[in-house]
Amino acid sequence: MNEPFDAPHVIATKRDRKRLSDEQIDWVIDAYTRHVVAPEQMSALAMAILLNGMDHDEIARWTHAMIASGERMDFSGLSRPTADKHSTGGVGDKITLPLAPLVAACGVAVPQLSGRGLGHTGGTLDKLESIPGWNASLSIDAMMAQLDDVGAVICAAGSGLAPADKKLYALRDVTGTVEAIPLIASSIMSKKIAEGTDALVLDVKVGSGAFMKSETDARELAETMVVLGTDAGVNTVALLTDMSTPLGRTAGNAIEVAESVEVLAGGGPSDVVELTLALAREMLAAAGKPDVDPADALADGRAMDVWRRMIAAQGGDPDAALPEGRESHVVTASSGGTLTRLDAFGVGVAAWRLGAGRARPGEDVQAGAGVVLHAKPGDAVAAGAPLMTLHTDEPARFERAMEALDGAFDVEPGGPGGDHVAGSIVLDRIG
Amino acid sequence: MNEPFDAPHVIATKRDRKRLSDEQIDWVIDAYTRHVVAPEQMSALAMAILLNGMDHDEIARWTHAMIASGERMDFSGLSRPTADKHSTGGVGDKITLPLAPLVAACGVAVPQLSGRGLGHTGGTLDKLESIPGWNASLSIDAMMAQLDDVGAVICAAGSGLAPADKKLYALRDVTGTVEAIPLIASSIMSKKIAEGTDALVLDVKVGSGAFMKSETDARELAETMVVLGTDAGVNTVALLTDMSTPLGRTAGNAIEVAESVEVLAGGGPSDVVELTLALAREMLAAAGKPDVDPADALADGRAMDVWRRMIAAQGGDPDAALPEGRESHVVTASSGGTLTRLDAFGVGVAAWRLGAGRARPGEDVQAGAGVVLHAKPGDAVAAGAPLMTLHTDEPARFERAMEALDGAFDVEPGGPGGDHVAGSIVLDRIG
Repeated sequence: MNEPFDAPHVIATKRDRKRLSDEQIDWVIDAYTRHVVAPEQMSALAMAILLNGMDHDEIARWTHAMIASGERMDFSGLSRPTADKHSTGGVGDKITLPLAPLVAACGVAVPQLSGRGLGHTGGTLDKLESIPGWNASLSIDAMMAQLDDVGAVICAAGSGLAPADKKLYALRDVTGTVEAIPLIASSIMSKKIAEGTDALVLDVKVGSGAFMKSETDARELAETMVVLGTDAGVNTVALLTDMSTPLGRTAGNAIEVAESVEVLAGGGPSDVVELTLALAREMLAAAGKPDVDPADALADGRAMDVWRRMIAAQGGDPDAALPEGRESHVVTASSGGTLTRLDAFGVGVAAWRLGAGRARPGEDVQAGAGVVLHAKPGDAVAAGAPLMTLHTDEPARFERAMEALDGAFDVEPGGPGGDHVAGSIVLDRIG
Repeated sequence: MNEPFDAPHVIATKRDRKRLSDEQIDWVIDAYTRHVVAPEQMSALAMAILLNGMDHDEIARWTHAMIASGERMDFSGLSRPTADKHSTGGVGDKITLPLAPLVAACGVAVPQLSGRGLGHTGGTLDKLESIPGWNASLSIDAMMAQLDDVGAVICAAGSGLAPADKKLYALRDVTGTVEAIPLIASSIMSKKIAEGTDALVLDVKVGSGAFMKSETDARELAETMVVLGTDAGVNTVALLTDMSTPLGRTAGNAIEVAESVEVLAGGGPSDVVELTLALAREMLAAAGKPDVDPADALADGRAMDVWRRMIAAQGGDPDAALPEGRESHVVTASSGGTLTRLDAFGVGVAAWRLGAGRARPGEDVQAGAGVVLHAKPGDAVAAGAPLMTLHTDEPARFERAMEALDGAFDVEPGGPGGDHVAGSIVLDRIG
């Protein structure tokens, strides 16, 4: 095949701070998928993009080219509108679990194609796989039938959506080129646009436990993604949310499922409830149902009903006992006062090291591993009182988990409350 | 083997505009040579270096690490001091051919490890291989014996010197990362320092036919290399020289040998003579013989004697007829006046397309192909008079060679001389 471009010239264009043309972008993504552009060429281009940036039109075309590398899905045959949510990932972020059935209970179908965890943030599929019998892999037909019948499905994304993105992401992961906002935005949005949802709500996390540590970067990422989605005909909004401390009181797999069930039962930690409802309201509004209050469906048990049907439809037993870690270790406060800081990253790394997460794709995770928090920032703690309990099947893991928690929390003298009580978890809304 | 670093973190250091530590540099070069750092990781690092730079200490350590990847040579057993010359490459740059025997005739040994051409600039070995019988490949022992006996050797660099550089250069060539001054400087200097010469003179070319198009870039490259050489104990100077128009009146292989022999016979184009003498004076001074005037050795035939012995020592017949292209085509002036511009790049590409150069490493070149110039900028030309003659074995090549010359020269009304006569070819001296 006679190629219209050659890779060194395309790379040099971005290296020299010029715009990539539509034709260059279409070619380089396609040729990379065809193995004509070599990995060492694509990684050099990714570094040039990371350091020199892309403008809005380049990012849109890059996203479009990644969508064009694979299949597109179509939910237009469903009787209900669809809405999807994407989180950029955080510690204790189990929100998809209560959110999908809640929004479905309000009349909007939720096709939630999810991934597995890597590093210190957990994966939605890993959490759900702690439910005995539950199966993450569905055919397109089974997924459509479940969406029509139950209204919510959480399953593994097939390899047919944006395959160029999958290949590029694996490359970026080993070449120090993950942290490029144009590439992050196009990676997320290419999959979500190819999925064919009507509405999309983005939960862009900011803070130590998030991928984006600064609000400036998180805002730029959110704005970029909202424009990409809107331009592609997807009704898109983003919430900037706080990830300086873990969400809720659990970070792991089975323990996060249990906490999600508490929320669906009308209880659960206030921050998880607040964020679940905020995202549900955005999804409902974006899908054309701004007047439906999801709090009602949480209170009257309709969301729990959908959860049970959703789990059962994928082979899971919603009444089964969840696995527990065989060993536990309690971390106590050495002095009394107020817990003034509990760092999301430290807790996330501890949960990962306990066995809840994986260091490499394909590794197994422990269903029962993780960290249960007995206090959150702003809470009073007594000297010697338990701050958190670590769970794992392998006690040899406690030592490195404890190292991750070294310096990850502060207990200061004085009463609870004051400045240390968290404000709203939602920092801003973009869209 | 337990690696002390991982590649994504080393890449991220330079990506985030921080200094690479000595240990990171040593590791990344060594691990790349051992195939532990993958090509896609090294190319991302090369792009980060290209865009974010390296400071003097980083460049010195990078150079040192490339030297440490291979063998070092040692000329200290020779009875004479050694001096080497490196040119960054230009059109019609045959200077090594008269220069090496000239400097040897003045009592300084010249171990000239050279390369083959790629693209529009010719290679010294390609030119010499047009001499019937001449052999570029010498063992180290044969090279040392010839240096002791004849005083000059021009031969192919063995693969043992700085093998990391060879691997990295091939990668940079396909990833748009050639144009990084720290990497260019360390690539050149790692080989020259490993070679073990006492003195080194760098001919850094500036202009359309050179790799460095701007004097600012050329000066930065020259200064970087002079510091690297000096710090490594090599007496190093650089001349910045003009490469806006071809050197001499030939660009090719056998035709450049013939022109070099003219210079050694006391004739030849004035610019070639000027640059040969300027570089010879620098090499002699750097090797501790500042009072020897190389013009004498050119005038009295001693340089020619060394040339004949040098060629014969490597199997060549200095009296053999040189190959000529089977076909020729004369380019004439469409109007009379003065040749005000003759672009080095255009002439270099034409010679390349006629068969004098190669597009890929390993391709054959034609000994008789090239461009003979009948006029140089500042010369008077009559309407219809020949401006240049193109030579090749394959007449199908004329068309694309002529395309390269389209717009590559200007003939303007008026008398010769004035602003268009070239000034000194040496623009500056650094060291």
